Amino acid sequence: MSGRDLRDKVLGGVEHYSRKYLYDVLNSLVEIPTVSAWGGADMARGAGLVASLLKETGFNVEVKSEGGHPAVLAEMGEGSRSILIYNHYDVQPPDPLELWDSDPFKLRVVGGKVYGRGVADNKGNIAARLAALEALSPYIEDLDIKVKVIVEGEEEIGSPTLERIVAGNLEWFKADGGIWETAYVRRDGRLSISLGFKGMVYVELTLRGASRDVHSGYSPIVPNPAWRMARMLTIIKDESGRVLVPGFYDDIDVEFLKMGESLLELVDVEDLEALREELGLKGFVGDLKGYEALKALHLNPSINISGLYSGYTGKGSKTIVPSTASAKLDIRLVPGQDPNKILEKLLEHLKANNFEDMEIHVESMYRAGYTKPGAAIVKASTEAAKEAYNKEPHILPMAAGSGPIYIFTNIAKTPMTGAGVGYYGSKVHAPNENIRIEDFHKGVKHVALTIINFATTPLTRKA
Amino acid sequence: MSGRDLRDKVLGGVEHYSRKYLYDVLNSLVEIPTVSAWGGADMARGAGLVASLLKETGFNVEVKSEGGHPAVLAEMGEGSRSILIYNHYDVQPPDPLELWDSDPFKLRVVGGKVYGRGVADNKGNIAARLAALEALSPYIEDLDIKVKVIVEGEEEIGSPTLERIVAGNLEWFKADGGIWETAYVRRDGRLSISLGFKGMVYVELTLRGASRDVHSGYSPIVPNPAWRMARMLTIIKDESGRVLVPGFYDDIDVEFLKMGESLLELVDVEDLEALREELGLKGFVGDLKGYEALKALHLNPSINISGLYSGYTGKGSKTIVPSTASAKLDIRLVPGQDPNKILEKLLEHLKANNFEDMEIHVESMYRAGYTKPGAAIVKASTEAAKEAYNKEPHILPMAAGSGPIYIFTNIAKTPMTGAGVGYYGSKVHAPNENIRIEDFHKGVKHVALTIINFATTPLTRKA
Repeated sequence: MSGRDLRDKVLGGVEHYSRKYLYDVLNSLVEIPTVSAWGGADMARGAGLVASLLKETGFNVEVKSEGGHPAVLAEMGEGSRSILIYNHYDVQPPDPLELWDSDPFKLRVVGGKVYGRGVADNKGNIAARLAALEALSPYIEDLDIKVKVIVEGEEEIGSPTLERIVAGNLEWFKADGGIWETAYVRRDGRLSISLGFKGMVYVELTLRGASRDVHSGYSPIVPNPAWRMARMLTIIKDESGRVLVPGFYDDIDVEFLKMGESLLELVDVEDLEALREELGLKGFVGDLKGYEALKALHLNPSINISGLYSGYTGKGSKTIVPSTASAKLDIRLVPGQDPNKILEKLLEHLKANNFEDMEIHVESMYRAGYTKPGAAIVKASTEAAKEAYNKEPHILPMAAGSGPIYIFTNIAKTPMTGAGVGYYGSKVHAPNENIRIEDFHKGVKHVALTIINFATTPLTRKA
Repeated sequence: MSGRDLRDKVLGGVEHYSRKYLYDVLNSLVEIPTVSAWGGADMARGAGLVASLLKETGFNVEVKSEGGHPAVLAEMGEGSRSILIYNHYDVQPPDPLELWDSDPFKLRVVGGKVYGRGVADNKGNIAARLAALEALSPYIEDLDIKVKVIVEGEEEIGSPTLERIVAGNLEWFKADGGIWETAYVRRDGRLSISLGFKGMVYVELTLRGASRDVHSGYSPIVPNPAWRMARMLTIIKDESGRVLVPGFYDDIDVEFLKMGESLLELVDVEDLEALREELGLKGFVGDLKGYEALKALHLNPSINISGLYSGYTGKGSKTIVPSTASAKLDIRLVPGQDPNKILEKLLEHLKANNFEDMEIHVESMYRAGYTKPGAAIVKASTEAAKEAYNKEPHILPMAAGSGPIYIFTNIAKTPMTGAGVGYYGSKVHAPNENIRIEDFHKGVKHVALTIINFATTPLTRKA
């Protein structure tokens, strides 16, 4: 069979399967509330469903756990070139529930879009890749490739056991190229592919006052940890967005920054301006604009308050001096920053400012990772994107978001590119998460073409 | 019948009824979750129960509403001297529920104590006064008194409609003396009676960022209202507990302060030290000790954070830039401070510091009120306390807590004293709220004797 014939046949299959996977398969994935922050029996149900879907597509499947939520590992083909596909079946909590227009755990199709928790992040991508792989499955031998799939269940809580799973199966995870969990369509219709993801330190900090909540008549004399929490937060970051922790910016990889800045020069900034307007914002942090905002978003580390709570947070009034105050902070790291060192610096800073009694709970901790733009898998996906989206993709040196990609790029030494079915309006991690149906179909085509391109073009080993 | 005979008969009745009211009646009151912050049908059920209990005791009863939760007004006797008894049937929310050792809405009797939401604040006092009134009811004519009872349902949300009810029935609320909702037993076994209560301004302040929660990858550029809230709170109060709002302390009534300070000199400070230890605190705010802590507690106005929330406050991690951050502040006022002016000063201060976009929701707002220690009703209750508790009571110029007593002392011009069944360990507004059974019985006796004393000693009109 000629290359052209194979390509045409696969693309025929893509059209066929992409409908099936969008409705039936994605619905079955969304229906299981695999919220990793909640845990429970639904996690194993979710992993089981992914495993059986992969089996039906022709994969050999294994479910592995290193004490956390199970991960599904699957393999198809015996070819000389290997490609590794990464996804996760877990999702973010759906709250605030009252802001959803429909049940987050039922697929809702309306106005050319599908809604549900995880349709963009990341169950829609699982479905899209399964559709592409089902279309490719008859031709795996012709393409002389080996496809490996890892679908984990802990990405939204910082992938605490993924590194152990990879380290314990290092050879298996070493591949000639890989496809990371996402990519998304911009306002201009171009696919945005991120070649790296920031690292993460997610901590919950707690200050305590009295051993129990006390009637707030006592507030003139009983210390209130909420006031202290407010003071503590103000010494972590200033109004301009600059982190005040000494040494926080010290170890940033300058070579990465240079590469990143030059890639960002090719990216237009209209999406950022449109986002600002959609969010009803007068300006960004520190009044950043254009290229400067783009650089801050993709190349700066940051500290964010994801949650803050103390005392009575219900309806109406309750009058107490709360006994505790807590803040959930997510710290996003760029290449060069070591999560352990960063955490240590934060704690030293707080200690030096009389918060030595602060309690810390570490939710997750991992470093940033990235692939250089010259890698063969990046070229394969760039070419595939031109064809599937009919437009040149945007290549970002690093996403705004985090992901444990370093486990693949730094530990398994597998260069990674991106693919994905979400778009700028997908409301990832927020109520009414959604994807556009046309993006789903283009996304399936893009994955299939990336794999064909990768199988049929010369390799440039190592990112 | 001689005064001695009547007294003995009433005290016999007190012993009898105090058992009945502690178990059956208090249980029936606790079982209705009259959480005024929640509202709902239970409020009317609660008012209905109080009304029928008063009717059974021989009162003429009327239920009134000025658009809020209903208040029960009752009257018995036609005597020449009038006494007004104030209570509230509403309670604080029970949360955090997980810290209760039993259902907050079922009376639990164990180890000489009874537990349940409201047993101290304020349903136990309703039951105790009903017991005393049932014992007194055959002798109302002999005592030549008129007893008026008001039981409202909005105290815990700041009594928003009580003032309208009183203003609309001003003659009815004018009495020669009155008994306020509480008093409590100290560690030394002495009853602590407060002659005044602080005022209150309860507000919820909200800052907004983006129009929706955003994936926290955007945190380098999307403004996070939680950081701003932290900054805003730090300009409201300093570490020593001093309020930073300009003019906050300006209008405090100096004459009241003088009177208060001299009364507090008679109060011993051991209870405060014991409280500090019980709460596991190394020190009080600003390292206040002894008489200075006592003065701060009873004579200082204050601003407290009762609740603080932004973003994800659930289990585990969620990574968002929250779209809102809110703080519930309760501001306690002392005589001389005008709630409207104080609120205005706070808002001006925040506006002047670039928080002009802050949104405010006012939950409640009322001034402080107090009775001078020389009033006849205060003397009657002091003498009654010596007999019921076998110890001299502590007379405080003002409680640490708030209550709309000004409606009685300032508007209806009725001097008020206190009585109550709680003790230092009652955990008012907190999980495992409880009273001691022996305090309940003493409390019933104290109320009965206060009324007898008041009916039989010369009047000093006006507080």
